[in-house]
Amino acid sequence: MTIFSKIINGDIPCYKVGEDAENFAFLDINPLVEGHTLVVPKLEVDKFFDLSPERLASLMTFAQKVAKSIEQKIECKRVAVVVLGLDVPHAHVHLIPLMNGAQDIDFANEKLRLTPEQFKEIATKIALF
Amino acid sequence: MTIFSKIINGDIPCYKVGEDAENFAFLDINPLVEGHTLVVPKLEVDKFFDLSPERLASLMTFAQKVAKSIEQKIECKRVAVVVLGLDVPHAHVHLIPLMNGAQDIDFANEKLRLTPEQFKEIATKIALF
Repeated sequence: MTIFSKIINGDIPCYKVGEDAENFAFLDINPLVEGHTLVVPKLEVDKFFDLSPERLASLMTFAQKVAKSIEQKIECKRVAVVVLGLDVPHAHVHLIPLMNGAQDIDFANEKLRLTPEQFKEIATKIALF
Repeated sequence: MTIFSKIINGDIPCYKVGEDAENFAFLDINPLVEGHTLVVPKLEVDKFFDLSPERLASLMTFAQKVAKSIEQKIECKRVAVVVLGLDVPHAHVHLIPLMNGAQDIDFANEKLRLTPEQFKEIATKIALF
């Protein structure tokens, strides 16, 4: 079982942003910027493009709801999308509020260090529920 | 009219990869790696997440077909997805074959210089038609 499935099942805690029948969203614990969120399908599939077209569409339209909420609640130019998938073998979409530009999505950047209280505050702010 | 609409209309030439009723794919003329492709909706909408959920789903399931073709024809680990959208005000999805890792999607990297013949060869290889 992947770490993301454990998060979805509640076996590992997370800063939850929202869920629907097929998808789940939570804050990235190593955020590039404030509001950096991961959106994952509940189905354990390694590669994003190996999801069925229906599941892929479901994941992206759910991600759209999360992105709209981020855009409303976090000061940013727009919300970027990145799917890399080389770390955890469970498809995941990074939603990254762009504060500056393309440099914000550089995964080599030092990650933000936030306190649990800060994570909670951000998650509450952009939560869909 | 955006430069992408001019490309879709045929007013500006491109190395076309494929199209369907609502979407169009062509090689990025400033590729980060070989096979770097742009997928755009025919509808001129600035922000990716401002597409209707139906159009967004259509764009991504079309992008999936293109990504599957890239994966089959270009030696890579998997195909990354990046949506930034700070340059051209017409939503576009970057499909980037990952050769190494996250560093492949760094837009600060020097772009590949390919001859028209090389572009043509790559487009023909991954074309959906």
